[in-house]
Amino acid sequence: MSVETKISSDKQEITIGFDHPFCVIGERINPTGRKLLAAEMKEGDFSRVEADAIAQVKAGATMLDVNAGIPLADEPKILADTIKMVQELVDVPLAIDSSIVDALEAGLAVYKGKALLNSVTGEDEQLERVLPLVAKYKCAVVAISNDETGISEDPNVRLAVAKKIIERAADYGIPRSDIVVDPLVMPVGAINTAGKQVMYILNELRDTLKVNSTCGASNFSFGLPNRSGINSSFLSMSIASGMTSAIMNPMHDLDMMGVMAGNVMMGHDPNCTNWIKRYREPVAEGEASSARGGREGGRRRRRS
Amino acid sequence: MSVETKISSDKQEITIGFDHPFCVIGERINPTGRKLLAAEMKEGDFSRVEADAIAQVKAGATMLDVNAGIPLADEPKILADTIKMVQELVDVPLAIDSSIVDALEAGLAVYKGKALLNSVTGEDEQLERVLPLVAKYKCAVVAISNDETGISEDPNVRLAVAKKIIERAADYGIPRSDIVVDPLVMPVGAINTAGKQVMYILNELRDTLKVNSTCGASNFSFGLPNRSGINSSFLSMSIASGMTSAIMNPMHDLDMMGVMAGNVMMGHDPNCTNWIKRYREPVAEGEASSARGGREGGRRRRRS
Repeated sequence: MSVETKISSDKQEITIGFDHPFCVIGERINPTGRKLLAAEMKEGDFSRVEADAIAQVKAGATMLDVNAGIPLADEPKILADTIKMVQELVDVPLAIDSSIVDALEAGLAVYKGKALLNSVTGEDEQLERVLPLVAKYKCAVVAISNDETGISEDPNVRLAVAKKIIERAADYGIPRSDIVVDPLVMPVGAINTAGKQVMYILNELRDTLKVNSTCGASNFSFGLPNRSGINSSFLSMSIASGMTSAIMNPMHDLDMMGVMAGNVMMGHDPNCTNWIKRYREPVAEGEASSARGGREGGRRRRRS
Repeated sequence: MSVETKISSDKQEITIGFDHPFCVIGERINPTGRKLLAAEMKEGDFSRVEADAIAQVKAGATMLDVNAGIPLADEPKILADTIKMVQELVDVPLAIDSSIVDALEAGLAVYKGKALLNSVTGEDEQLERVLPLVAKYKCAVVAISNDETGISEDPNVRLAVAKKIIERAADYGIPRSDIVVDPLVMPVGAINTAGKQVMYILNELRDTLKVNSTCGASNFSFGLPNRSGINSSFLSMSIASGMTSAIMNPMHDLDMMGVMAGNVMMGHDPNCTNWIKRYREPVAEGEASSARGGREGGRRRRRS
């Protein structure tokens, strides 16, 4: 049996693993670059967060990432409040996302279930502060493959950083199955070898280090036109190379199509049931942005 | 240097290989299942063939497959006539496609350049009749991995058949670089493991047998809704697994998008030039079926 990472809420447990459907971690609850959302969250207005949570789960997210990185705000408190609110609203497990260790801890303190902590890098100071939290709360953690020297363009250096984090985690009693490595996806528009790099690292993570993986999928297409088209293919090809989860936008139909077809290709959609349910009826004009367009179209047609 | 298969017309040479952009072999010139086209070709009316040839090259086909399989017709003559006509019309090299050996030979006799002969199976009688033609005309050949016992569901049996064809070809002085193996793609709607089977065989063809590969890409999605969505992901994932060409419909935008993004991912679209050229401007409504929609849209906008 290959490695399995279990993540849970108080209502649901999911498994990230090579023999399971790809884990879609919805990225929308994140004020970075969303001024309106940032202002609202700072004021304690979570209406947009609520809408984003529900819409992402409806669109097929297996988990939701929750980030409250707002400049000059009380991030630990806002993150904890947001997590409480989201957990009351939806059943899926959450990734607790911050670059501030106090915020990660505040999130863990209120979280119900086994969270995915996002994230720890290979920097010694980070490891010494974050890994004890992972051990204390018995959660899983995203391991980002950069260290004090930055992000290496040499995939073997990034693999070495991942290995270092896995080993350091073991010192804290954290099992390999609770580490989800982010190989760091570079924009292919700037670095032509970015795709081959990622595929190589993913192969090694699966076959040599034997750990699950995740990434910020849309980084790959940064700066290019038709980003969803690149994302869709990137997701499919990464799945073929061993990626088992991604932090991504489940509201983008093409991106989700790449994941769903990837599940079909890997044999993780038995009888193609999910694919057929989603695409049984042609998506009606103007419904392209609705993740359930196909199914709703079908319903309407049966009624008429 | 990995294996390279050179195919040419009298005007153009292309290379199929792991370090080259994916080779798109246009499938449209084929009367199978196209009653109107069959009737026209039988009467010597090639107007639809002409239109299909030009449109496929415009849409990005690297090669064209030409098939004249019409029941109760003089297939060798029609195939030869079609090939002569298509070669006058477009520059790209051709695949000469028939299940009738006399038709293959008639096609080779009139073909200008080094064709891709489509195909030979692992059946002894086929090998004894087709391989001498491949040797005589010094062309390349598609090797289909089934034999007298049919198509095995065991990928290792299909690999063994491919190996047999490669070895038998060597007896005729045909180099490995002139064999393009078709792993036989099964419909995933019927066989849930079809995707993993193909990826496994493609890995082995690239890493162990060291030969190029091709397939009828759309077989995979047979019977499913949103076939182009599956095809797109199938093509991307197959490219990641080592597939170097496919017989496919270049008029289907999503299928071609999977190939183009696959080239980006593999580092075979330097600076993403082709991707940017294709998608620089959003494809205008109603132009979705035009392979150059993006570029034409751009032109119009600059003019206005």
